[in-house]
Amino acid sequence: MTPSEFRALGHRVVDWIADYQERIETFPVLSRNRPGDLLGALPASPPEKGVGAGGGWDAILEDLDRLILPGITHWQAPGFFAYFPCNASGPAILGELLSAGLGIQGMLWATGPAATELETRMLEWLAQLIGLPSAFEGCIQGTASESTLVAMLAARHRAGEGDLVAYASEQAHSSVQKAANIAGIDLRLVPVRPDLSMDPAALDAMIAEDRARGRRPFFVCATVGTTSSTAIDPLPPLPPDLWLHVDAAYAGAACVCPEFRWMIEGVDRADSFCMNPHKWLLTSFDCSAFWTRDKKSLTGALSVTPEYLKTAHAGQVIDYRDWQIPLGRRFRALKLWFVIRHYGAEGLRAHIRRHVELAKRFESWVREDGRFELCAERTLALVCFRRRGSDDENKALLERVNASGRAYLSHTVLPGKGYTLRMAIGAPATEERHVRAAWDLLRA
Amino acid sequence: MTPSEFRALGHRVVDWIADYQERIETFPVLSRNRPGDLLGALPASPPEKGVGAGGGWDAILEDLDRLILPGITHWQAPGFFAYFPCNASGPAILGELLSAGLGIQGMLWATGPAATELETRMLEWLAQLIGLPSAFEGCIQGTASESTLVAMLAARHRAGEGDLVAYASEQAHSSVQKAANIAGIDLRLVPVRPDLSMDPAALDAMIAEDRARGRRPFFVCATVGTTSSTAIDPLPPLPPDLWLHVDAAYAGAACVCPEFRWMIEGVDRADSFCMNPHKWLLTSFDCSAFWTRDKKSLTGALSVTPEYLKTAHAGQVIDYRDWQIPLGRRFRALKLWFVIRHYGAEGLRAHIRRHVELAKRFESWVREDGRFELCAERTLALVCFRRRGSDDENKALLERVNASGRAYLSHTVLPGKGYTLRMAIGAPATEERHVRAAWDLLRA
Repeated sequence: MTPSEFRALGHRVVDWIADYQERIETFPVLSRNRPGDLLGALPASPPEKGVGAGGGWDAILEDLDRLILPGITHWQAPGFFAYFPCNASGPAILGELLSAGLGIQGMLWATGPAATELETRMLEWLAQLIGLPSAFEGCIQGTASESTLVAMLAARHRAGEGDLVAYASEQAHSSVQKAANIAGIDLRLVPVRPDLSMDPAALDAMIAEDRARGRRPFFVCATVGTTSSTAIDPLPPLPPDLWLHVDAAYAGAACVCPEFRWMIEGVDRADSFCMNPHKWLLTSFDCSAFWTRDKKSLTGALSVTPEYLKTAHAGQVIDYRDWQIPLGRRFRALKLWFVIRHYGAEGLRAHIRRHVELAKRFESWVREDGRFELCAERTLALVCFRRRGSDDENKALLERVNASGRAYLSHTVLPGKGYTLRMAIGAPATEERHVRAAWDLLRA
Repeated sequence: MTPSEFRALGHRVVDWIADYQERIETFPVLSRNRPGDLLGALPASPPEKGVGAGGGWDAILEDLDRLILPGITHWQAPGFFAYFPCNASGPAILGELLSAGLGIQGMLWATGPAATELETRMLEWLAQLIGLPSAFEGCIQGTASESTLVAMLAARHRAGEGDLVAYASEQAHSSVQKAANIAGIDLRLVPVRPDLSMDPAALDAMIAEDRARGRRPFFVCATVGTTSSTAIDPLPPLPPDLWLHVDAAYAGAACVCPEFRWMIEGVDRADSFCMNPHKWLLTSFDCSAFWTRDKKSLTGALSVTPEYLKTAHAGQVIDYRDWQIPLGRRFRALKLWFVIRHYGAEGLRAHIRRHVELAKRFESWVREDGRFELCAERTLALVCFRRRGSDDENKALLERVNASGRAYLSHTVLPGKGYTLRMAIGAPATEERHVRAAWDLLRA
């Protein structure tokens, strides 16, 4: 595809996206596709001849509307309340576009000096924005799952030999268990208090018990903002041989507002910290920000250097490949740069506060309606609630609302509360009228 | 950013990329930045006020030229010969743009039915294109590092308890060692034959030796196209309790041409297979294609399902989160769809053959010049060679060529050959005149 063909098609695709943004409310939020609908509509074999850059692209762009759109669950729709958000934004989309257009691979400083240094600076900016101490050095990981895994590997590297034990609360994200499974490490789940946060006394007792048995406690994952209910684990003082990782994948974004920084009180004691700008900070997936105060253990765990990856500046520069599971890296700092410059600290704070305000309103409506009950304390923009009645009635309610196409919620099961509906407000396009419409739908 | 603001800025960014493509030959291939050049030019703190969608974007786009471009090592430049290629292409860039524009996250079938089913079909297409048997089921991973890791985890899951041992050749990619380190598994490196491919007799002997010691051999990684020299490991018949993973990250793309399928002779015996369309198949990074014949072991190793990830269709559909390390997923099948439809099987074969032909020509020039020698057999589009003389002379030669800005090569060290220059031809824009210019530069 020549530059001029790319230019013409690029304009058409940009227009398609702008049109999509304009008509996003017209689609059912949750796709109505049944399993196999798209698969059955696609040729079983690849074409022998390509369409080239001529009229063949008309068919491709038509297929977007005909085949792809019906199979899209619209994460950016204002009626998307199902999962923690996965914010796209104009500046971030432009950043992804440029990253793809430059087509570089920044595994080493030398293979992308600008990618490396822009990333270093963006993680510094982000740390300042959320109030993280300057001792933390950061990089972009793909997802919080990978951030948790690399934290655990760095901790294992520092701990050395022994019968290692890791800890996280019973309400920690499944990715903590998955990381432990991958690394082959034993993870023990710590009981929670009534507010669903990790019980520090129970953690202390488990650590003491394991030590008494000759085991080596080495890693604690504290969750700031659990997936089920946004519970906030305390960041406890730990013995120095334990690595404290803070998983603030969702809630960390809210720390751009000083009034929410109480959630990470004690973070200066943490060894590593993760929050996902791709969730609630307008930076399209994937972009998980990961920081550590112990870079040496991180790179000690993850650096393997064959001859063909040796470069002249090694040692004086950051080679981010040594901070992550993969070798290769996209130029993801561009989208973060665009987002922060476009919105500024002010704009990011306004974005968070707007959603929290909407969630407060939704919460008050639930509280005022005797047919419903709140299931957990609201911390940010997630409201956990249920209809008074059986789990099955709630399940049926959720299915009816989601089948309407006008809103999409998800569920969890909370200890002592049973089947719970999750109303997670966070799409950039969501306004009060959308939240109100979802509530009216639930009541109807 | 409103849709109409996005539309206007999107057109400008598309134009910027098209202009970049047109002037890519004017930049030094390897960035001339010194460490800290960009870092020092960026503000230490984020802006309080955003620029919004007004004239502020003029400054951002100017900064691309002023700050970012000097720090770019141009992977898409026709003079880029340093590493295995990282092909971008118009269709793939448009796919990334659309993926960002839709902004969905396809962790579960329900959260992106089209993303899931398009990916299933694209991996079927790709399997047909490279001649992989239909028993293989595939998905997109980020990188070959992750493909190797998930293969190893699936194999461990199937093997169960015991003192597990994995094997790969001494010439295997560093990511195999890294995957073993992550999983906490012992990896033994198998000696190579004179052509730098894994010695099957040595592998058999090591397996027998380990069994005799009561250990459990469970995993063999065969490399089809090593990074240092494109050596091709044989795909040996293995006892059924060993998992055979084939890492064809680079060379697998060449299997779109029937004349190169000898390299994967015996692949029907493999348990998993990886090749990276983002290397040499015109599909922008990241896109690593991974297939397995034992999906059950893969998902057995990687599935952790909390309540909040349970959906109605579980069991009847594919939830690709269970095939990979991360939970979240971008809609990467779009770019693969665009690439295959744009180029067709014919176009992809032509792309590969053109680069192999150029490499042959370069190889013949090296052979004819008494001052140089070839260091390994050329298999595809990588030529390993050196100037007759000391390692230091070769190191100096490489540095001078790379400092010229007109070509960028890399190096390795080959057993018995010492410091070796790697000329890896594979950028879509590379033509014979660029290869010739690099050769003239090397000779001069």
